[in-house]
Amino acid sequence: MIINNFLPIELKDARKIVDEVDIEERFEKIYFNDALKRVLAEDIVSQVNIPSFDKSPLDGYAFRKEDVEKATKESPIVLEVIDVIMAGEVSEKSVFEGQAVRIMTGAKVPNGANCIVRYEDTEFSEKEVKIFSPIGKNVNIVKLGEDVKKGDIIIKKGTVITPAEIGVLASLGIPFVKVFKSPVVSVFATGSELLDVTDEMEDGKIRNSNSYTIEQLGKMYNADVIQYGKVEDDLDTLVDMYEKAIRNSDIVISTGGISVGDSDFVLTALDKIGVETIFTRVSAKPGGHVFFGKYKNKFIFALSGNPAASFMNFYLYVRPIILKMQNKNVDMLKVKSELINGFEKKAKVDRILRANTFYKDGKYFTELEERQESGVLSTMVGKNSIVIVPKETKISKGEIVEVEFLYEN
Amino acid sequence: MIINNFLPIELKDARKIVDEVDIEERFEKIYFNDALKRVLAEDIVSQVNIPSFDKSPLDGYAFRKEDVEKATKESPIVLEVIDVIMAGEVSEKSVFEGQAVRIMTGAKVPNGANCIVRYEDTEFSEKEVKIFSPIGKNVNIVKLGEDVKKGDIIIKKGTVITPAEIGVLASLGIPFVKVFKSPVVSVFATGSELLDVTDEMEDGKIRNSNSYTIEQLGKMYNADVIQYGKVEDDLDTLVDMYEKAIRNSDIVISTGGISVGDSDFVLTALDKIGVETIFTRVSAKPGGHVFFGKYKNKFIFALSGNPAASFMNFYLYVRPIILKMQNKNVDMLKVKSELINGFEKKAKVDRILRANTFYKDGKYFTELEERQESGVLSTMVGKNSIVIVPKETKISKGEIVEVEFLYEN
Repeated sequence: MIINNFLPIELKDARKIVDEVDIEERFEKIYFNDALKRVLAEDIVSQVNIPSFDKSPLDGYAFRKEDVEKATKESPIVLEVIDVIMAGEVSEKSVFEGQAVRIMTGAKVPNGANCIVRYEDTEFSEKEVKIFSPIGKNVNIVKLGEDVKKGDIIIKKGTVITPAEIGVLASLGIPFVKVFKSPVVSVFATGSELLDVTDEMEDGKIRNSNSYTIEQLGKMYNADVIQYGKVEDDLDTLVDMYEKAIRNSDIVISTGGISVGDSDFVLTALDKIGVETIFTRVSAKPGGHVFFGKYKNKFIFALSGNPAASFMNFYLYVRPIILKMQNKNVDMLKVKSELINGFEKKAKVDRILRANTFYKDGKYFTELEERQESGVLSTMVGKNSIVIVPKETKISKGEIVEVEFLYEN
Repeated sequence: MIINNFLPIELKDARKIVDEVDIEERFEKIYFNDALKRVLAEDIVSQVNIPSFDKSPLDGYAFRKEDVEKATKESPIVLEVIDVIMAGEVSEKSVFEGQAVRIMTGAKVPNGANCIVRYEDTEFSEKEVKIFSPIGKNVNIVKLGEDVKKGDIIIKKGTVITPAEIGVLASLGIPFVKVFKSPVVSVFATGSELLDVTDEMEDGKIRNSNSYTIEQLGKMYNADVIQYGKVEDDLDTLVDMYEKAIRNSDIVISTGGISVGDSDFVLTALDKIGVETIFTRVSAKPGGHVFFGKYKNKFIFALSGNPAASFMNFYLYVRPIILKMQNKNVDMLKVKSELINGFEKKAKVDRILRANTFYKDGKYFTELEERQESGVLSTMVGKNSIVIVPKETKISKGEIVEVEFLYEN
């Protein structure tokens, strides 16, 4: 039996074990416009110059700077307009002495021209344009490669892809990118007492909420989640369920059935399948009963059946694995925050408190929830953060503590 | 012509106009498990007590406290075990004097019993259990309604739905919830110079990146986005495109074609359709050329064609409308942050600087990007925040400035 081999470990040790777990890097090539929030697994090197030609950044006239060196307000230089170039068009004409070309924003500068003056600073007709002052070489010309040079690394491996990176990939003409794979996560809730959300209520039963909470937590951290719903407390059924889930996913998460009761078959089922134990108990509240193990290259989590406990189990032990598999930073934002209220009960184990944290006038403030029972999920409503209180410690109003945000920025 | 009627307005005025725009509240009823990140448009009132019965929070024995008042370590009281109750089961037996029932975590406490003792504190066989000390009334019994009381408001209207709220809805047996509608956003990039990401390169052309960047920005703020790609600089084509987009969506976003050039038909097209102008120019850089208007109850944005400018246009003017339509808070997290480097050029208009901001040792720090040109999107790579520098002002290394994060927490 798995359970007899292990004593509870300390919370900080459990977190360290999770952080140091060896993850096999896996990649996939995906369409750039599907890559939001994924992590690049290759350097993006530009194969092109941007712009790929000398470009006009404004609507104006292109000509030779040498022609207007003596231009003044009183005696402007008059140039002949020989062509009009719209953005996307290329002029077949070259600009010679005394000539100019009307040019639109984004258009390619014609051969021979080496400066551009905006409309507003000229007087023009269809045939002629008057220039009223000298202008420097290359003024108002965006030179080939000025934004991006061919061969430059534009986006580094390990970058989390946001809208700007997707725009850059489009502009570079790179339709497919190599990214770290997101894990497939299977989730189910064990317990013969469970009803689904639309089932008619029966005496002695409760509704399954855990598998939904865990599904959505998985989505918050960008996993692909398979929802298996609720499963009976029956050894054979559980073994079948775990085997199916292990086959179909990278991470398997169950809730419930890991206490010491007559129908707690989860650890027996995992033992039967041959899942290797990493830890089975953590000295922390809520969520002391929690199993973390491995089967081949799959990670197996059996979380508490208590809703708030399974939530915290997920945050502390599953989330880091999901993020590591995507090559994302495991540390959520941790800030120093002033407590609006205290938690005065010293506990024998580390306490994981649900809390709401906000930023005001240059500082963070945290309000602790009063009801911290492991069975009560309703007091997680509206909470965005946790505070960990070491055993035999109390924390008081006004104290500055470290707070961890639950979700990614 | 729209353009002639309006002078540039100040950035702070443009933001205020956007913040104060009147939005018609719209709702939809959706499946609870699809409601992640949506905003509740109704109070969630519990129709049930949770638990809906007196429940055991542990594996143990239930009996009458009156029977064990004289129990001691030396002379324990022996009770007869008359039944075993698994979670989800209900015992048909009542507990009378001298009797006990073996009960599992989550099971309903049998009639007659008024306390529970855990396994570990007893000695038991199949037929008998020994109790070694007195116990108080209701000890280890979770009373009916202890977590959630029928009639209580469990989740308030206006709450952003996270995994905990979804779990609570499941546990309350509420499969459908009323939420604020997410807007449908149409996006297209105008410009005859545009190629798509997989097109072969041609001289004088560039690739469309704006419509992809804008699509992904829309998704970051939870909008449903219709991607129309690139559209030619042609008045009739533009009018058709706008009409189609207006028909299909709540917000229409185009990029490009709003300058003063020969092929800038966007404002003419909007004028022809009868779009009402809210503003057409903002005294800010990048992105001074930007149109915001309304057609019936639809919002129309024509953003700059320059990639970084259209990005900032979206952040400043489109994002608040998308968030308001969902009844979400418009203000992204704003923090006081210490500048790692300065921006010493005073400008004639407000500058919107791209930057990277991070938290270290209890403080925020911000590194400004050196290349802030409106045409250069590549320097938005890896940026998570902006700093607004008022006109005729410079900001220096070590200074504390206000920084706005680009994305939701």
